[in-house]
Amino acid sequence: MKNIAVLTSGGDSPGMNAAIRAVVRSAVYYNMQVYGIQRGYEGLMHGDIKRLTASSVGDIIHKGGTILKTARSPRFMTEEGRNQAFYQLRRHQIDGLVVIGGDGSFRGAQTLQGSGTATIGIPGTIDNDLAYTDYTIGFDTAVNTVLEAVTKIRDTSSSHEKTTIIEVMGRNCGDLAVYAGVAGGAESIIIPENPVTYEDVIHKLDEGRARGREHHIIMLAEGAGSASNLQQQIVEETGEEARVTVLGFIQRGGDPTASDRLLASRMGLRAVEELRAGTSDHVIGIDRGELFAESINTALTAESKGNEELMRLSSILSV
Amino acid sequence: MKNIAVLTSGGDSPGMNAAIRAVVRSAVYYNMQVYGIQRGYEGLMHGDIKRLTASSVGDIIHKGGTILKTARSPRFMTEEGRNQAFYQLRRHQIDGLVVIGGDGSFRGAQTLQGSGTATIGIPGTIDNDLAYTDYTIGFDTAVNTVLEAVTKIRDTSSSHEKTTIIEVMGRNCGDLAVYAGVAGGAESIIIPENPVTYEDVIHKLDEGRARGREHHIIMLAEGAGSASNLQQQIVEETGEEARVTVLGFIQRGGDPTASDRLLASRMGLRAVEELRAGTSDHVIGIDRGELFAESINTALTAESKGNEELMRLSSILSV
Amino acid sequence: MKNIAVLTSGGDSPGMNAAIRAVVRSAVYYNMQVYGIQRGYEGLMHGDIKRLTASSVGDIIHKGGTILKTARSPRFMTEEGRNQAFYQLRRHQIDGLVVIGGDGSFRGAQTLQGSGTATIGIPGTIDNDLAYTDYTIGFDTAVNTVLEAVTKIRDTSSSHEKTTIIEVMGRNCGDLAVYAGVAGGAESIIIPENPVTYEDVIHKLDEGRARGREHHIIMLAEGAGSASNLQQQIVEETGEEARVTVLGFIQRGGDPTASDRLLASRMGLRAVEELRAGTSDHVIGIDRGELFAESINTALTAESKGNEELMRLSSILSV
Amino acid sequence: MKNIAVLTSGGDSPGMNAAIRAVVRSAVYYNMQVYGIQRGYEGLMHGDIKRLTASSVGDIIHKGGTILKTARSPRFMTEEGRNQAFYQLRRHQIDGLVVIGGDGSFRGAQTLQGSGTATIGIPGTIDNDLAYTDYTIGFDTAVNTVLEAVTKIRDTSSSHEKTTIIEVMGRNCGDLAVYAGVAGGAESIIIPENPVTYEDVIHKLDEGRARGREHHIIMLAEGAGSASNLQQQIVEETGEEARVTVLGFIQRGGDPTASDRLLASRMGLRAVEELRAGTSDHVIGIDRGELFAESINTALTAESKGNEELMRLSSILSV
Repeated sequence: MKNIAVLTSGGDSPGMNAAIRAVVRSAVYYNMQVYGIQRGYEGLMHGDIKRLTASSVGDIIHKGGTILKTARSPRFMTEEGRNQAFYQLRRHQIDGLVVIGGDGSFRGAQTLQGSGTATIGIPGTIDNDLAYTDYTIGFDTAVNTVLEAVTKIRDTSSSHEKTTIIEVMGRNCGDLAVYAGVAGGAESIIIPENPVTYEDVIHKLDEGRARGREHHIIMLAEGAGSASNLQQQIVEETGEEARVTVLGFIQRGGDPTASDRLLASRMGLRAVEELRAGTSDHVIGIDRGELFAESINTALTAESKGNEELMRLSSILSV
Repeated sequence: MKNIAVLTSGGDSPGMNAAIRAVVRSAVYYNMQVYGIQRGYEGLMHGDIKRLTASSVGDIIHKGGTILKTARSPRFMTEEGRNQAFYQLRRHQIDGLVVIGGDGSFRGAQTLQGSGTATIGIPGTIDNDLAYTDYTIGFDTAVNTVLEAVTKIRDTSSSHEKTTIIEVMGRNCGDLAVYAGVAGGAESIIIPENPVTYEDVIHKLDEGRARGREHHIIMLAEGAGSASNLQQQIVEETGEEARVTVLGFIQRGGDPTASDRLLASRMGLRAVEELRAGTSDHVIGIDRGELFAESINTALTAESKGNEELMRLSSILSV
Repeated sequence: MKNIAVLTSGGDSPGMNAAIRAVVRSAVYYNMQVYGIQRGYEGLMHGDIKRLTASSVGDIIHKGGTILKTARSPRFMTEEGRNQAFYQLRRHQIDGLVVIGGDGSFRGAQTLQGSGTATIGIPGTIDNDLAYTDYTIGFDTAVNTVLEAVTKIRDTSSSHEKTTIIEVMGRNCGDLAVYAGVAGGAESIIIPENPVTYEDVIHKLDEGRARGREHHIIMLAEGAGSASNLQQQIVEETGEEARVTVLGFIQRGGDPTASDRLLASRMGLRAVEELRAGTSDHVIGIDRGELFAESINTALTAESKGNEELMRLSSILSV
Repeated sequence: MKNIAVLTSGGDSPGMNAAIRAVVRSAVYYNMQVYGIQRGYEGLMHGDIKRLTASSVGDIIHKGGTILKTARSPRFMTEEGRNQAFYQLRRHQIDGLVVIGGDGSFRGAQTLQGSGTATIGIPGTIDNDLAYTDYTIGFDTAVNTVLEAVTKIRDTSSSHEKTTIIEVMGRNCGDLAVYAGVAGGAESIIIPENPVTYEDVIHKLDEGRARGREHHIIMLAEGAGSASNLQQQIVEETGEEARVTVLGFIQRGGDPTASDRLLASRMGLRAVEELRAGTSDHVIGIDRGELFAESINTALTAESKGNEELMRLSSILSV
């Protein structure tokens, strides 16, 4: 393997730059040439491809976002788009490609089968919504970002004795709400996997008030409902105001935490080593602290391990 | 003056604790007794009043919120409520009262005229919506909190080349949007005092895209419109997605900045010294770095100095 | 088991409060009474012991330090001290005791054998110097605290093209230096377990400069040498200035990260459940994501797993 | 005025990038060409000069350090160096030069008299050691950086009931120690302008302990002594341990605060407008919120206004 390339695709996540750095420097270490592809598969089709060296990635490990930018590319899924991508890969004699992103990005990598370029995926998404791996790059940072917001809201809600709803990302996967909710001491956590009715939430709210609790924080994953609907229902049923915070894209930003940088660094090196070993159509994952590689197909059909332990912890500790 | 009390009222703001500490320790320095009244005028009516000592406030200077809590109290504006407050002030022989809050809190202080208790107000609100003073306690912290959010959004919006709308507090006063907008390099700033039409914003957005700008941050004060309305209009007119973040009560939280702690400390000492000097019905303010005291009436009728310099700066620098 | 107590001992670490909260609320959940012992074994001997309820720990999950305070207590190791402790435990009818701390604290727990009180240890130390467990409470926060310092130093050192030495905690265990060094992209990492000579460091420094590197960050664990000695040697051998930062007790502070709060919460619940199950003289640990309990003796004689993977990663990525 | 240039010189400070951005975009607004000179006067002599456009500075307002880098340049003070600088200024037809830095940088600007290039200085230094201006760019950020360290140390020192010495920058000017000390609630503040003897400090320490104070934070400006000497003296005279933190170059880093970005933005615009108005050999300053320009000579001989108000505040509030 002489020439490899790296791209980031889909939603960006903090730590993607640390992964890019690791891919580039590992390639340099193994005497390969390495290219950076701009704006994901979109840039691949357009040949937006540049050489990267060890110093191109000299000051990026601590930066959020991705220096390679990212884009969604519907056209890449057409035959024409795919052919353009094949052409560009051949033109730059790229033997191996590292794709950093989520499930859509991995599906993109699968369509490159037959191009003669080996592909390895690295999981980068703040949602932690890839069931095959314990953690994705960016998740730990996003949890801590949400947690900072909870801490700020605590200051004012304990001054005011109020209820606050915090809506966080997570369409299918409530991990962000669960981790940040347990770590933030939220009294209620509402996630897609474990739908509680709004009645349950309001019931707990009433109980807490009866016991003299001063504030009540509800962590809501966007996939499990809308903060403004819940807010309305609380007003109607309890007659009391509830406040809403929608964190939005703040959750994608921020300097990556140590954990995310280490995970990204380890996965970047492993991806390059897998390419050297002849692996293709695989993704890197982490299982109880150990890296592994498995086929994209297997990875995309994995079932979620769920959050029973943390949800139980929450119900015991948030009395 | 032998006995003074301090209360916080209205929306809490970071730095209120530093002001409480300063009031308490200044009182101790001048050999007065000092009481803390819980939950603003509500607690005053209920006699929720406790002695504070130098060590009661020993570890609060860095904490957001207010250890005295705060509440809104419609009943305080009734004659019955006022009489209860008078009774409590007499019962504890409180000669002077320091009220930390916004315009509503100062109006509350005015209704205590005739109680025999002298009153001094300290401006504490994150909105900076008290025109008589250059700055209020909590404003600098809130600006920096919004700024952190902008920085996080920058990470991801420059990776994605997208438009983001950030809705911040400010019903009548756009200072928070202006300061954070200029400091954050926002391309558009929309405030109640200087209403630009959404068309202007969209026009600027188009221009920027034409010139190759990668992202566009719109800072919107809540008093000047709703983020979701603006979002819809952008989609309709440009066909492009815009993202929304509603910071909500995060803006009230956080450890106070150095500026807010210093302002609060200075104002707390000054308030006590004004009480000692026999002043009443006055508020403390800051004018170009210098503290002053003026009557509540004068303060509440002051006109805003406006934000021309910063708005001009924004229009020049956010090309 | 009816009555349990909890204490923190040795150096404090961020997340101890989250562990205390978890112990208290788990005990409440299992219908036990729970006591907090102030200032570790010192307070135990003096009977500085108070009832804690679910609301005593209502607003502490996000706070650094320990609400129970901590102290070193040489007298506790004498027979007289131990007898006093026995007396206090009997007097309060404490059936089980949770000790949060490091190896010294666990040895303290061992001396309580024969008191009739079962003991369970929870690992709380920022150094991660307890070999039997993958992680200790406070370590993730400390790594991120050091990392923030590295990020700040990067700003200025890349403006200045200079060498910086950052001295971090770690007498016998270099984990803090290794994790923060790899995550911060430090060019050299010097730890007790893997002593490189200063010559090696200076050699790498020269190489980097020859290749045009703009700055060089050296992460030094205190157990592997002194920053000021290294600084002097660099000046002597290269003629160039190197700057020193000694982080000191900053490393013990800060709001705990999500990871530390989750680890602390999980361990707190587990400790209470172990006491209920009749376990004593054990400590809780974590092995690849799973909690476990093992005897204090076994734990204290465990051998470190070392840092080979991360040190190799560092040598590949910090070219 | 057609062509202007900008350079940063001396120690970097957070907000320099915001000032560079403001200079560049203001120049663009006034239809000038603008050049960035790398590494201060060193780069000027070497002709390390590049065109900057509005988009060159598109994503730097929030970044610490300086994209133009900075250097000390003894050779620039020689005739030969100065002549090289003159030559480069002529070669690029630079009519006006904005110098961002401290007193040394302003003296450098003075030596360019006779070159035909007008010069304007902008004060950028974290020490706030330029007496002619109330604030310098970077000072507010540095104060808040020190404050964060104090907050972290508070966590652990209140758990431990210990004394901590924090050594901060400031050779001749104690502003950083004073502002951060008052805002952080430090019990003792030692600065060059107002030398207290170590005995005074130790006396206050004893008093505090007698009154039951749990911890004692000493803020020491480097110009007023060494933390390790003070530490030793405390041990000798009180028999108790004191802990030392030397913040070092952390103080130069960090994202600039809102205040520093606004100050930098305003000063950058003003500098360009002064050049357009034909001013030279002047510096921009701020006096009670208002910008002004005055001659470098006058500025460099200004006398410090001192810190009486804050030092008095400290002595009253840190009982």
